[in-house]
Amino acid sequence: MYKAPVEDILFTLKHVAGMEASLDEGAFGDLSADLVEAIIAEAGRFASDAVAPLAAIGDKQGSRLVDGEVKTPDGWRDLYHDWIGGGWNSLTAPEEFGGQNLPHMLHVAAMEMWNAGSMAFALGPMLTMGAVESLEKHGSDALKAVFLEKMIAGTWTGTMNLTEPHAGSDLGVLKARAERRDDGTYRIFGQKIYITWGEHDFTDNIIHLVLARLPDAPAGTRGISLFLVPKVLVNDDGSLGARNDLFCHALEHKLGIHASPTCTMIYGDGRFGAEKGAVGYLIGEENRGLACMFTMMNNARLTVGTQGVAMADAATQKAIAFAKDRTQGKAPGWQGAGMSPIIEHPDIARTLLTMKALTQGARAITYACAHAVDLGHSTEGDTARHWQERSSLLTPIAKAFGTDVGVDVASMGVQVHGGMGFIEETGAARLLRDARIAPIYEGTNGIQAIDLVSRKLPLSGGQQVRGLIAEMKAVAQAVATSNLDGFSETGERLETTLADLEATTEWLLTALDEGRMEDALSGATAYLRLFGLALSGVYLAKGGLADGGDDRQPARIALCRFAAENLISETASLRDRVISGAASLAAARVVLN
Amino acid sequence: MYKAPVEDILFTLKHVAGMEASLDEGAFGDLSADLVEAIIAEAGRFASDAVAPLAAIGDKQGSRLVDGEVKTPDGWRDLYHDWIGGGWNSLTAPEEFGGQNLPHMLHVAAMEMWNAGSMAFALGPMLTMGAVESLEKHGSDALKAVFLEKMIAGTWTGTMNLTEPHAGSDLGVLKARAERRDDGTYRIFGQKIYITWGEHDFTDNIIHLVLARLPDAPAGTRGISLFLVPKVLVNDDGSLGARNDLFCHALEHKLGIHASPTCTMIYGDGRFGAEKGAVGYLIGEENRGLACMFTMMNNARLTVGTQGVAMADAATQKAIAFAKDRTQGKAPGWQGAGMSPIIEHPDIARTLLTMKALTQGARAITYACAHAVDLGHSTEGDTARHWQERSSLLTPIAKAFGTDVGVDVASMGVQVHGGMGFIEETGAARLLRDARIAPIYEGTNGIQAIDLVSRKLPLSGGQQVRGLIAEMKAVAQAVATSNLDGFSETGERLETTLADLEATTEWLLTALDEGRMEDALSGATAYLRLFGLALSGVYLAKGGLADGGDDRQPARIALCRFAAENLISETASLRDRVISGAASLAAARVVLN
Repeated sequence: MYKAPVEDILFTLKHVAGMEASLDEGAFGDLSADLVEAIIAEAGRFASDAVAPLAAIGDKQGSRLVDGEVKTPDGWRDLYHDWIGGGWNSLTAPEEFGGQNLPHMLHVAAMEMWNAGSMAFALGPMLTMGAVESLEKHGSDALKAVFLEKMIAGTWTGTMNLTEPHAGSDLGVLKARAERRDDGTYRIFGQKIYITWGEHDFTDNIIHLVLARLPDAPAGTRGISLFLVPKVLVNDDGSLGARNDLFCHALEHKLGIHASPTCTMIYGDGRFGAEKGAVGYLIGEENRGLACMFTMMNNARLTVGTQGVAMADAATQKAIAFAKDRTQGKAPGWQGAGMSPIIEHPDIARTLLTMKALTQGARAITYACAHAVDLGHSTEGDTARHWQERSSLLTPIAKAFGTDVGVDVASMGVQVHGGMGFIEETGAARLLRDARIAPIYEGTNGIQAIDLVSRKLPLSGGQQVRGLIAEMKAVAQAVATSNLDGFSETGERLETTLADLEATTEWLLTALDEGRMEDALSGATAYLRLFGLALSGVYLAKGGLADGGDDRQPARIALCRFAAENLISETASLRDRVISGAASLAAARVVLN
Repeated sequence: MYKAPVEDILFTLKHVAGMEASLDEGAFGDLSADLVEAIIAEAGRFASDAVAPLAAIGDKQGSRLVDGEVKTPDGWRDLYHDWIGGGWNSLTAPEEFGGQNLPHMLHVAAMEMWNAGSMAFALGPMLTMGAVESLEKHGSDALKAVFLEKMIAGTWTGTMNLTEPHAGSDLGVLKARAERRDDGTYRIFGQKIYITWGEHDFTDNIIHLVLARLPDAPAGTRGISLFLVPKVLVNDDGSLGARNDLFCHALEHKLGIHASPTCTMIYGDGRFGAEKGAVGYLIGEENRGLACMFTMMNNARLTVGTQGVAMADAATQKAIAFAKDRTQGKAPGWQGAGMSPIIEHPDIARTLLTMKALTQGARAITYACAHAVDLGHSTEGDTARHWQERSSLLTPIAKAFGTDVGVDVASMGVQVHGGMGFIEETGAARLLRDARIAPIYEGTNGIQAIDLVSRKLPLSGGQQVRGLIAEMKAVAQAVATSNLDGFSETGERLETTLADLEATTEWLLTALDEGRMEDALSGATAYLRLFGLALSGVYLAKGGLADGGDDRQPARIALCRFAAENLISETASLRDRVISGAASLAAARVVLN
């Protein structure tokens, strides 16, 4: 069973991702290290003791659609109410509406643990928090007054309604329509698919944020507006009124996250009354809905990356526990009686260390990104701009590298279990099934790679990415000159990797400058992976360099060295793939005819 | 829906894996190329038209245990009888017992197609064929007379009973016991798990091959005997008699291959009569059961590698069809009206080409291995010994590389489908779920890597592997000097990869010579992948060099070039991992404490 790795998380937050320095500099106001520790420990307890025990039944029962209502798995409604009762839904929300205004770093760390407990469970709050963010940034005061406090408390949940059958990655072609009414409200009509937690029995109301098109809207992405559409209308006194004209038509039968209902939502079908059309309230300006949506998109992408880390960590814990317990054969050098625990076999040990290193690397990337988000808020002027760019740069890497790691590590976890890994009762397979959605939703990882190359590399004329690489090189140099046992060769290896990153980055920037977009995009996925591996190596190295006030520094150095010698050297072939691969890709398209 | 790639398969058999030359040399008797083509085409039709359409219902319904009987999915019993009615169960079996005595290459190619149609379906015959092989090689004439013809016809199916809860990879510790009876028969007692197709409603009888231990047997692997234990006893006149004392106690709830019943079998519980003990007949000699089992193990491992190829091919076909149909956004350079098919996006095209290249490479390895199996049978003396060693060397690579490719490519297939890939109705997720068992069973891929390094590299003092590498280098040189457009640089890249393979092989042979077993085994998995990639590149290159009498040579060259520039350069980091990684692995074990 998952046990939240509170010490690893706190170490990474403080010594790798920059929280300690920011606390010292007062970037987080009067937040103390003690309070951070208390919050992380308590969030971890909830994840381990309350969420994780309900993951298996959630997977097995799933959420079911019965007479138009969604029934969640046994115990899940109580779990949700315990969770909001602990105030966990409001960590980062503004104090004005009952939130706790805590740093995004804490949100990401806590989200990692809840997701590791059950990804299907933590996904619901993730959507609510995204809706809160969008409403808070772009909603009118009147809308906020009615909805925000209840959504921040978790009394009502929120959803995001983007996708339609023909409009997934390309939202410009969506067809859901909105009609103006004289009272300033709108009526919404259309079908939305893949609506996560679009219907459930946790709460009395569900607040849908829906993208739709006005009759006179321009074509494409500049003609999309965002509407708040509650499941149940709210009376002037705040009490619940009539049922709005929307319902969940069907649930998807999915590979994983079975407890998370993935709904097809129908708006404006007239099911609950005479006049057709779901009552909606505009958020932001007409035809500017996509901008409102993108406000929350970056943070949601980071949180999805966190889901990858969560699946990877849960899978790693489970595999290590199994490998210590299960005995088979005799490992080389085994002196014990009978068979050895399989963790003694070099191939199993290598797999487990690979899982550890990838998880730890991906975790550090997500926390560093959250740190940049926080400093983007807590600073001003050019400094704020710098950190906002930094979080923009790191977000697609955190999302795509983190979720790829989630799938890869979960698959390794199945393998370590041997035959038992394929049996559902073991739970290893569930982690793989759940993890598999994360590289797809909130923008596929291919789209993250395109975003990284085409929109993030050019930030500040390439100076943002060059600045980050310079910081990474300083870490590698510190390792090379550290005089820590066995660590200097690791520093040299990291320097080689960073030379790969630098050369590839410059090649891409030149390709972009010269308008060779197909060349640049051909290698985008390989480049993102290269970047993720290089960051992982550097963050593992930062961990190795830090004393941390514990006795784990030798283990951190050993893990970094293992990663440098076994995982990160892949960057050489990735560099080659980016720079040389585009021409062969173009030539090979004939194969697909 | 899967469509058997008959042309690709025939091309690979003939021009890449050596069948054409062997046919010309008369190694396959009077078998003609025309007959080969007819058989492959017909097997492909059955896979596409009969098997594939029942895959989805098989997955959805699964096989179910009802009152001790296993009920297979709707339509599957008829499917099985149509399949044996076509004579497909007897392709490679000896003519004396009704078999067709055709080459193993045809078996592997046909098995690939049936598995691609439905892996859960083809798995049953795979087990029957393994049992046939073991019985034919080691059984007494009396046993063969009763059982072999019916098993070859598929009238009765066969199983292999190895695993017990505490004895998976390490069979030396199994506990099932056998007692001698005065009439020369035995009584079998014990529990076996993970028995594939151990119970079903296809046939009136099921012939279990069961590993068990006699009371006076030595401990460990030298005290295991193999018994034939029929579900229903057979009277002297060949008619079915009493029910034997064995039954299926439970089915596993698995990640994939739902239609394949994975049974817990109980022997000797006394359920069907007064005297306890399932009647068993010794196969081979007492205490030599493991040797009998290993007879079929090599070929079964090759066939499992084929399952990986099958899943990869089915996933690739599905993804390409989807990517041509689905439109989203505008790819760079897209001139058409509206959105582009996603296949136009460079990242999607790269993914599809990667899937193609890995599938084709893994396929060629399995066929080349089958070719070596065939020549090991059809030749004599040193030549036979050479080909037997060659098939031994290639088998762990075919199994592990092929099944890793199966999982990786199936996962890429899910990704190409975007959100729809996560929805079960699409079918992409099923391929991933089914594929996931293949790296585990018939010896985990970690065990294949250990086998490759510790038992196969030393064959003929290292000369077998050196000879194969020399052949591979000759192909690379032929490419480098081919004067085919754009192909010479590919030859140079292949030469670099083969230098990686050669250096790593020599390093491992030295480590084995010096008894540094932990060093050798630490890099075994990375070495196996290196070998698989190098073989893939070389076989793709052989395909590119061959005219083939069609218009696809430019496409084959382009695919080989793509693989060389985008996939195979990974060998440099794998070489580094094998040679440098062992020390860091040993040092990092502290991380797992």
